[in-house]
Amino acid sequence: MSAIVSARAGIVVTGTEVLTGRVADANGPYLADRLLELGVELSHITLCGDRPADIEAQLRFLADQDLDLVITSGGLGPTADDMTVEVVARFCGRDLVLDPGLEAKIGDIVTGLMARFPGVDAEAVLAANRKQALIPAGAVILDPVGTAPGVVVEGHPTVVVLPGPPRELQPMWQAAVATDALQAAIAGRTPYRQETVRMFGLPESGLAETLRDAEGSVAGFDRLEITTCLRRGELEIVTRFEPQDAAAYTALLDALRARHDREIFSTDGALIDDQIADLLRGRRIATAESCTAGLLAARLTERPGSSAYVAGGVVAYANAAKTDLLGVDATLIDQHGAVSEPVAEAMAHGALTRFDADTAIAITGVAGPGGGTEGKPVGTVCFSVALTDGSDPGATVTRTTTLPGNRSDVRERSTTVAMHLLRRALTGHR
Amino acid sequence: MSAIVSARAGIVVTGTEVLTGRVADANGPYLADRLLELGVELSHITLCGDRPADIEAQLRFLADQDLDLVITSGGLGPTADDMTVEVVARFCGRDLVLDPGLEAKIGDIVTGLMARFPGVDAEAVLAANRKQALIPAGAVILDPVGTAPGVVVEGHPTVVVLPGPPRELQPMWQAAVATDALQAAIAGRTPYRQETVRMFGLPESGLAETLRDAEGSVAGFDRLEITTCLRRGELEIVTRFEPQDAAAYTALLDALRARHDREIFSTDGALIDDQIADLLRGRRIATAESCTAGLLAARLTERPGSSAYVAGGVVAYANAAKTDLLGVDATLIDQHGAVSEPVAEAMAHGALTRFDADTAIAITGVAGPGGGTEGKPVGTVCFSVALTDGSDPGATVTRTTTLPGNRSDVRERSTTVAMHLLRRALTGHR
Repeated sequence: MSAIVSARAGIVVTGTEVLTGRVADANGPYLADRLLELGVELSHITLCGDRPADIEAQLRFLADQDLDLVITSGGLGPTADDMTVEVVARFCGRDLVLDPGLEAKIGDIVTGLMARFPGVDAEAVLAANRKQALIPAGAVILDPVGTAPGVVVEGHPTVVVLPGPPRELQPMWQAAVATDALQAAIAGRTPYRQETVRMFGLPESGLAETLRDAEGSVAGFDRLEITTCLRRGELEIVTRFEPQDAAAYTALLDALRARHDREIFSTDGALIDDQIADLLRGRRIATAESCTAGLLAARLTERPGSSAYVAGGVVAYANAAKTDLLGVDATLIDQHGAVSEPVAEAMAHGALTRFDADTAIAITGVAGPGGGTEGKPVGTVCFSVALTDGSDPGATVTRTTTLPGNRSDVRERSTTVAMHLLRRALTGHR
Repeated sequence: MSAIVSARAGIVVTGTEVLTGRVADANGPYLADRLLELGVELSHITLCGDRPADIEAQLRFLADQDLDLVITSGGLGPTADDMTVEVVARFCGRDLVLDPGLEAKIGDIVTGLMARFPGVDAEAVLAANRKQALIPAGAVILDPVGTAPGVVVEGHPTVVVLPGPPRELQPMWQAAVATDALQAAIAGRTPYRQETVRMFGLPESGLAETLRDAEGSVAGFDRLEITTCLRRGELEIVTRFEPQDAAAYTALLDALRARHDREIFSTDGALIDDQIADLLRGRRIATAESCTAGLLAARLTERPGSSAYVAGGVVAYANAAKTDLLGVDATLIDQHGAVSEPVAEAMAHGALTRFDADTAIAITGVAGPGGGTEGKPVGTVCFSVALTDGSDPGATVTRTTTLPGNRSDVRERSTTVAMHLLRRALTGHR
């Protein structure tokens, strides 16, 4: 690893509901994105419950990692189990002091809120909220967005204390970034660039081989931080580098293209769903689904505005539905089976006709766990794309593939394969 | 807190894509639930990237917290940045050794996979996967679900190494729990019972009030650990207690039933999806979906064997599809709008007829963000269930509701409302 000098950060997320997974943590991912934009390297995220000893242990761990910045989220409320500020003060060796100006500010907010809840004991609420005006001596105060203020405590690491609710944390983080204390902590940051390449149809080990070879052939390869990830049947390659190493990234991209030109479908961050939405503009698509039973139609309509190009679809689960709703010839099913290329083709043509569409895609397969045969094991899925273009009577692309995994994986992956087959048909790469 | 001596655990989630938030971590929440069921207390979850030094620092931190069990997820793939097994071996003071039996097993899996990728260099792939057959000396091997094996390394803490993809991690965790090594590590656990009540149609605040009152009226209430969670539009009340406190739980359940009998739909862990699958046995259902565009059909067919009762469905996204495919009278759409109870009813009857079904459900709504009007704001969704029973000409239940959230929330929640409306229609509770 090269000696890149960059500011480094860690995040402590507190709260039993987040630790136990009852509430998904949105603050870690939000702060991770913001740190990336700032060129600050995020090394660790830790989650714990509301126990002071656990919070303090995590702060100590992060300090031992020689980080410049530690951000905490949660534990700033008025109740007894909200202890983060007290723990941070002790950790930073500061006394906890009452800030009278802050107490008045919180009092105003709380009085305003209480007007909406007439039954509540005002004195008790104000006393509970006084606790929130206690801050580590000398800390920079971040004004409340809800009722809880945050603080920035300078040191090594500098600690930023933020509230748990994302709608309070996010604006308060922006305020924290503007403070001199935080800017001083991250002064050693490195501006990074990040680029993403997406591929389809290549196994992860095939990419690993290419990257091993690139290590020898790409000048500056060791200054690129490359992570690869298999997601929804696609490979995602994210590369992070300093701006002066852009040439090394270009060389890496060339090396990837030289071997996997057909598999690379995106180098600009666009998802297959973005590309399909663009390609369908001005067209009219219909779906005919058996094993995926509506998942592809649902995926095509995830985006607002998709009604401009999605006419609809048929979920033809039973064979009778394939013949009655899509006009598939029953003898075709008898001869070839419901999971077969001729039936997929007939389904696509049926969808084209019934919905008066110019683009149709059909999926029929064995999602499992039952229904597999020797010739057509579980995971066998047939796809067909049919297009009409003005006078063109209807070009068809049909494929059969065997997908791994359980019932849910086969169904989910089938929609991804369908999206890519659609892309190839619409861009003329068959 | 009483002095319960319980086994304690920590989780290390590795992977740059998870640390940076590009992929949401599903393994921490999954393992948190499983540990809860086992009566093992989860103290810390830590996330880091693929750097060996960071993984090792987190293992060291968790070991310092005197935990009995540490579970890692991720970093078991064939690429060079997958280092978890190597790091764990070093951390546990064990050599890394090649297991020939495991190597043969992985070889078989990989050879099978490669049949689908004819262009790939088989030798290189097998070499990359050989790395996955290296395990800490003396560790218990967990057979691969994908291509990567896991391991259990006994010690204090005992370390369980699992793969990152949830569909691989989940079955492998079940295998890990069955090992003597893991059972020995968590021998100090407290046996708990856990019961779940599910409700639909009650606001969270209504439940909070009932629970406050139960605090006074239910003997032993303070020995019940109750957590409530709003999920997919349903309320889930999970209660954890030691076996000797079963009477207190029974009293709590009585208190809930006394006030919310209509809203409680499950007290035995069954999901609405399980109940609908049971209710549809012997019937034949068809769907007619507009705003949900296939999500309900996909949900009804998630279970193996659903082809016994799901005939199919129409995704009638465009108005023309509603008239052409479902026979909805165009003047009905003109008069009442596509999002209206008369159109929902006509869609349901159309689905009954076209699929020759005895049960049909239709959904038409405004998913947003556009398309809302003053009378029918975003989130307005109309549902209709139509049933025929032998001579019965077709009983219909139709409802309109306004659902909160963004486009994706409205679509997802609509499927839940539809499932509950279907349940009420099929059980005769209208």
